[in-house]
Amino acid sequence: MDLFERWESNVRGYARTYPTVFKSASNARQTDEAGKSYIDFFGGAGVLNFGHNNPRMKEAIIKFIEADGIPHSLDMMTTTKRDFIKAFTETILEPRGWDYRMQFTGPTGTNAVEAALKLARRATGRKQVIAFTNGFHGMTLGALAATANAYFRNAAGVPLNHVERLPFGHPLEGMEEVYADPSSGYEPPAAILVEPIQAEGGVNVADAEWLKAIRKFAKDRGALFILDDIQAGCGRTGSYFSFDGMDLDPDIITLAKGIGGFGTPLAMNLNKPEFDKHWSPGEHTGTFRGQGISFIAGMVAMDYFKDDNFMADVRRKGEIMESRLKKMARSGMEVRGKGMMQGLDTKDGAYAKKVVAECFENGLLLGGCGSEGRVAKLIPPLTIDDADLNEGLDIMEAAMEAALVRA
Amino acid sequence: MDLFERWESNVRGYARTYPTVFKSASNARQTDEAGKSYIDFFGGAGVLNFGHNNPRMKEAIIKFIEADGIPHSLDMMTTTKRDFIKAFTETILEPRGWDYRMQFTGPTGTNAVEAALKLARRATGRKQVIAFTNGFHGMTLGALAATANAYFRNAAGVPLNHVERLPFGHPLEGMEEVYADPSSGYEPPAAILVEPIQAEGGVNVADAEWLKAIRKFAKDRGALFILDDIQAGCGRTGSYFSFDGMDLDPDIITLAKGIGGFGTPLAMNLNKPEFDKHWSPGEHTGTFRGQGISFIAGMVAMDYFKDDNFMADVRRKGEIMESRLKKMARSGMEVRGKGMMQGLDTKDGAYAKKVVAECFENGLLLGGCGSEGRVAKLIPPLTIDDADLNEGLDIMEAAMEAALVRA
Amino acid sequence: MDLFERWESNVRGYARTYPTVFKSASNARQTDEAGKSYIDFFGGAGVLNFGHNNPRMKEAIIKFIEADGIPHSLDMMTTTKRDFIKAFTETILEPRGWDYRMQFTGPTGTNAVEAALKLARRATGRKQVIAFTNGFHGMTLGALAATANAYFRNAAGVPLNHVERLPFGHPLEGMEEVYADPSSGYEPPAAILVEPIQAEGGVNVADAEWLKAIRKFAKDRGALFILDDIQAGCGRTGSYFSFDGMDLDPDIITLAKGIGGFGTPLAMNLNKPEFDKHWSPGEHTGTFRGQGISFIAGMVAMDYFKDDNFMADVRRKGEIMESRLKKMARSGMEVRGKGMMQGLDTKDGAYAKKVVAECFENGLLLGGCGSEGRVAKLIPPLTIDDADLNEGLDIMEAAMEAALVRA
Amino acid sequence: MDLFERWESNVRGYARTYPTVFKSASNARQTDEAGKSYIDFFGGAGVLNFGHNNPRMKEAIIKFIEADGIPHSLDMMTTTKRDFIKAFTETILEPRGWDYRMQFTGPTGTNAVEAALKLARRATGRKQVIAFTNGFHGMTLGALAATANAYFRNAAGVPLNHVERLPFGHPLEGMEEVYADPSSGYEPPAAILVEPIQAEGGVNVADAEWLKAIRKFAKDRGALFILDDIQAGCGRTGSYFSFDGMDLDPDIITLAKGIGGFGTPLAMNLNKPEFDKHWSPGEHTGTFRGQGISFIAGMVAMDYFKDDNFMADVRRKGEIMESRLKKMARSGMEVRGKGMMQGLDTKDGAYAKKVVAECFENGLLLGGCGSEGRVAKLIPPLTIDDADLNEGLDIMEAAMEAALVRA
Repeated sequence: MDLFERWESNVRGYARTYPTVFKSASNARQTDEAGKSYIDFFGGAGVLNFGHNNPRMKEAIIKFIEADGIPHSLDMMTTTKRDFIKAFTETILEPRGWDYRMQFTGPTGTNAVEAALKLARRATGRKQVIAFTNGFHGMTLGALAATANAYFRNAAGVPLNHVERLPFGHPLEGMEEVYADPSSGYEPPAAILVEPIQAEGGVNVADAEWLKAIRKFAKDRGALFILDDIQAGCGRTGSYFSFDGMDLDPDIITLAKGIGGFGTPLAMNLNKPEFDKHWSPGEHTGTFRGQGISFIAGMVAMDYFKDDNFMADVRRKGEIMESRLKKMARSGMEVRGKGMMQGLDTKDGAYAKKVVAECFENGLLLGGCGSEGRVAKLIPPLTIDDADLNEGLDIMEAAMEAALVRA
Repeated sequence: MDLFERWESNVRGYARTYPTVFKSASNARQTDEAGKSYIDFFGGAGVLNFGHNNPRMKEAIIKFIEADGIPHSLDMMTTTKRDFIKAFTETILEPRGWDYRMQFTGPTGTNAVEAALKLARRATGRKQVIAFTNGFHGMTLGALAATANAYFRNAAGVPLNHVERLPFGHPLEGMEEVYADPSSGYEPPAAILVEPIQAEGGVNVADAEWLKAIRKFAKDRGALFILDDIQAGCGRTGSYFSFDGMDLDPDIITLAKGIGGFGTPLAMNLNKPEFDKHWSPGEHTGTFRGQGISFIAGMVAMDYFKDDNFMADVRRKGEIMESRLKKMARSGMEVRGKGMMQGLDTKDGAYAKKVVAECFENGLLLGGCGSEGRVAKLIPPLTIDDADLNEGLDIMEAAMEAALVRA
Repeated sequence: MDLFERWESNVRGYARTYPTVFKSASNARQTDEAGKSYIDFFGGAGVLNFGHNNPRMKEAIIKFIEADGIPHSLDMMTTTKRDFIKAFTETILEPRGWDYRMQFTGPTGTNAVEAALKLARRATGRKQVIAFTNGFHGMTLGALAATANAYFRNAAGVPLNHVERLPFGHPLEGMEEVYADPSSGYEPPAAILVEPIQAEGGVNVADAEWLKAIRKFAKDRGALFILDDIQAGCGRTGSYFSFDGMDLDPDIITLAKGIGGFGTPLAMNLNKPEFDKHWSPGEHTGTFRGQGISFIAGMVAMDYFKDDNFMADVRRKGEIMESRLKKMARSGMEVRGKGMMQGLDTKDGAYAKKVVAECFENGLLLGGCGSEGRVAKLIPPLTIDDADLNEGLDIMEAAMEAALVRA
Repeated sequence: MDLFERWESNVRGYARTYPTVFKSASNARQTDEAGKSYIDFFGGAGVLNFGHNNPRMKEAIIKFIEADGIPHSLDMMTTTKRDFIKAFTETILEPRGWDYRMQFTGPTGTNAVEAALKLARRATGRKQVIAFTNGFHGMTLGALAATANAYFRNAAGVPLNHVERLPFGHPLEGMEEVYADPSSGYEPPAAILVEPIQAEGGVNVADAEWLKAIRKFAKDRGALFILDDIQAGCGRTGSYFSFDGMDLDPDIITLAKGIGGFGTPLAMNLNKPEFDKHWSPGEHTGTFRGQGISFIAGMVAMDYFKDDNFMADVRRKGEIMESRLKKMARSGMEVRGKGMMQGLDTKDGAYAKKVVAECFENGLLLGGCGSEGRVAKLIPPLTIDDADLNEGLDIMEAAMEAALVRA
């Protein structure tokens, strides 16, 4: 650990939350170099939906590497990429009857959001994007302008413009009117950017009716409707997209995190063809857009969505999580979530921090989110077995008790 | 190829330059699904310094995966990351007597540049960054503001502010004075951001004396001196950093592309401790900051720099490239470069496009850069053998002839 | 009129609304060169509170000029300026027990607003200013950013940033909370800028309770509360300030238009001392800050406020206007206003335009405001006599009838 | 003076430079309330070209007021305005064979510049404006972005964007090329805004050849060429425009200060018809655009330009000033200027401040400009008689001596 202290940047964060050096990981367990095993409710910040070192993915990746598959191809065409595209369209898009163009951006969520905002501005010729309170969309300046948290925003060192903010989940009442009035001072928006479930913002689940109203508002105002499903998508909530079944018809869907399957980077936007055509070739680039290992693992991930068994199991485990959390929740606390993204809002940042520390001591990786980190967020691998899930929840329950005593 | 046409975004670019579907790759050769083999002078846009599927890296990666190493760790501590840090500091930093803090950002060049600019603005409390004509620093809005090319800039859809531009390579004459005068209207800059060799901008090699003058200018004005060595670093020019031996003492060095070794994403900034301390924990984050496979391959890459043999060989092959290009260059054309980044400025974008197409037909992947793509850029894997190197140069020479005829 | 067509800019507007060449004016009457007399309900856009060529002011100005008084003094001290300051403080500030510093800015409303916003940003170190839908604050870029109307905003040619907009008159419900939450994405505001009565925006009268809530919101958030009383102040509404008696305790009051009395330019901000001290000498300047003629006439204007007689008469005439307008208003129309600023919202821009044209034909100058000019705004000189007032209202009533027929 | 201290804003500046209360003024003399007379080399910051209380103007104004002329008309048509337009076109435009549209903006220089920049951005659809080091163009945010001085700029409290700066008077060498190259990062400019003589910036006289090069540069790049002649125009330099005879063919000329003649506010832009037509009616407004008194006095001012006598006298007196200043200048100092705008660059702000104070003590109003106020700027009324001119120069000479002793 001294070596990290000596040589790594002061910016490191999780290294402080989880002060040990990890050595290996398998499914929902991470092991440190001293041999201590931790149950992982953190899930690589929502990346590891299919567990650490998913055996099917390991096998496919090793085979790919041994066969001299192409690990890095920018946006050239490769057989591996074609296989991924084929699997994704057959498994996800076609069954839903959806027509989108797949845009592989630089392989992080913030790059995906930047690309989506560019496209929306290009397609509309407008500048302002509407985003919401407590939204999280990334750290590069274009995406950061849409991110709400002041701690992140202040790090920019320059003003973040061209984003207007509305309160998440609140009725629009009257906003249609002011946006329609050319004398109101509200500019016609290029896009509305919203997470169906705000993960970093505190596990805030948007109501389907509200999302439909926002969607209608976007359509009425000629704005693109962009759903950021980077953390909540890829099966996390019990369906592939967190908004499946809501009839939202987004113009752009941003995906990253879980899409690459194994924890290697990949990001992909789904753009409606009528907007996608506003891109000129090579207008938005990025070196690491073509990642062979991520394509291979992402293709394996598609197997989990060929029928409803996996998603049904996720919903079942999500219910276990929710019911256990509701039992743990003390007066004034709140449980929120969907499927296997569940949050316990303790309403107290200092207390939540103690719970997280206590969990770590007792072999559970748990993360905080929301204002001052007051919400314990549970996003274990979707593949976690019931024993680990229950043991993790036991540790958390005990930690909540212990943190109270220490407070 | 129909499937790409049907489902992939209109933004794809290299898929059009190299219209075939690649299946496998080894060292400096890429093979398409029809079995046709291409010599690779494109090098994954400067990523594949150690060749496609470098055998040492393959072996290490497979071993890592089989042992359930941690592929994805954000900024937690892992044994793999420690090994990488150790190898990098022992091989690169300590022999130079340099003290830097390593910041792993989101794993792309643009994320690295965004982090560097944030830190510079935080550390100085200033906003304006000086960047240079024809500079390329990335596609997200913070980095794009520093990128020069209008084709990329226009895609932003919003104004790109807080960057001032000076002509690359031109004497500063008088600029010290105007920046020092509070009545001049030039704000004190937060940073000067410069590529020692502009790759995308047209293989423009900055003179060491000019870089020293810029460095002095930055110091005199209290600005951070940031060297973007993302494409030219990691051994490309015959030394680890493209500016080795110039005594430039940069405040931040941005690295990406070649640092991960195998073509999997990684980005790392080297921050002087006195500036790095301005970061608060977790203030600049990113999901894919901790990439096990990239750490493993990046550590293997360090072996190439334990003595001067590899770099000497790069310089030798660079000389072959340069002398061959000089022979090919017709009147009015210009050869520029350093080590194994060599550019032939044909001064004619349409002609250069024909050369690239002709090369592709004849089994050579070559890329264009600079204004209207008029500069043929040669950045083969550093590990290319002499036979492939010479065969590639032969193909290029013939293509230049053929393109003339067709013109 | 040909000469104007030939030589004057295409930007001219009122020259089209009132297509005649005026020669002289007295109190509430303007006469064109053909000798036709017009009753003036336009009042020089709210400047001519004391009538055209107010006899007391004429006398004082001529005396001043004959005595070689100083017509132009920037911010030097003159006896004339001292007399004005003395009269203003004794008549307006001291009776209210108010302590403000008087800042004479460039002599237009937009200059005054620019100065107020600068001071608020300086004093708080913040950037964002909250302004309201349909607000009008001026045409220079700093003030224009706070102005709502898209027709004016689009003329800027650059984005107008650093202003957030809230709906005028709507309850704040929930906004206190989101502005207080550092994770909400709403930045702490430097100022809240509001017109107690929106004149150009459509004669929208803010409720006292709402203004108090806004005031409290500003104080709670550490923001300056700026009241723009440029058009509604100086006696227009039956009290010197349009918000007199509301206990609002503004941090800055912007005044212009009527303050110079005679129609010559003057603008003055009233800054609370604790904020005014953030100005350094000469930091915000302007050539025409010291206007002798305006000081003289402005001092004469003070005589009207030495007792309540004049204001009582304004209230009485305001009631006449209001009751006549209510009789004229057809179903769906709305009468709004206070004192002698009264608006009839016809809810139909095309119809309102016809009314204005019909009035002009029949010897009444009337102006439109609000969205698409659908609100007829009546702001005659406060000194208009009852005969002219009633005759003007008769003309308007007939015009409303005639415009209906023509529609 | 206590009353000013008690009630006026801390922002006041000249009140500190000239710490007395002025009572009357005539031609080039200003008298304080104690009866002390001062020779005026400050000229109302360049406004009072025709002297304080010019007798011909006094007479015309009094007559105008007595006849109930229209003092305030926005952009309605009046006989007075027509007379002014007629006099201006006949005296200034037609003899030069120039075709411009006259736009009366809000009556201050900064309003004029804001209008010019809006028009340039509208006409070109571009955003960036090129302005120069040490330029001064006003205090409202649009004009302030073009103003160089950091003291003024910092007061904005927000970043000032969309202006690029080039060194005043320096050869453009290479800039044509970089602005023409779409890969350079320099955006095509909407306008180049330049003062032929920088007044506030330190009496920096642009070379005619350089201005022609800038003009050509603008034309080649499709940018509007805007000459800000607000302080140097209206006869100040010995010709009506400071750039007369240079064949510069500006697209917009901004005028203010001296144009109203008497010291009452007026501002007027001259727009080429092909650009002026991009204005829509009423798109850029302002309350005080139509100032009867300024039109009257401005029309009288035209008399001075009916033949060359007045201008010849200005040139003669300018030579006196220049030769006296050259005698006063000590080693290292520099005399710069044209006609009756002359500056003595002492190269020492503290010393210059002492000279100004010493002059004031001895009955001369002198102002400083340039970096740290180190340049003594002499801009007396053009109508000053030789006795006052020489006496003023004597006082200054003695003050320079005395200030040396005190230093």
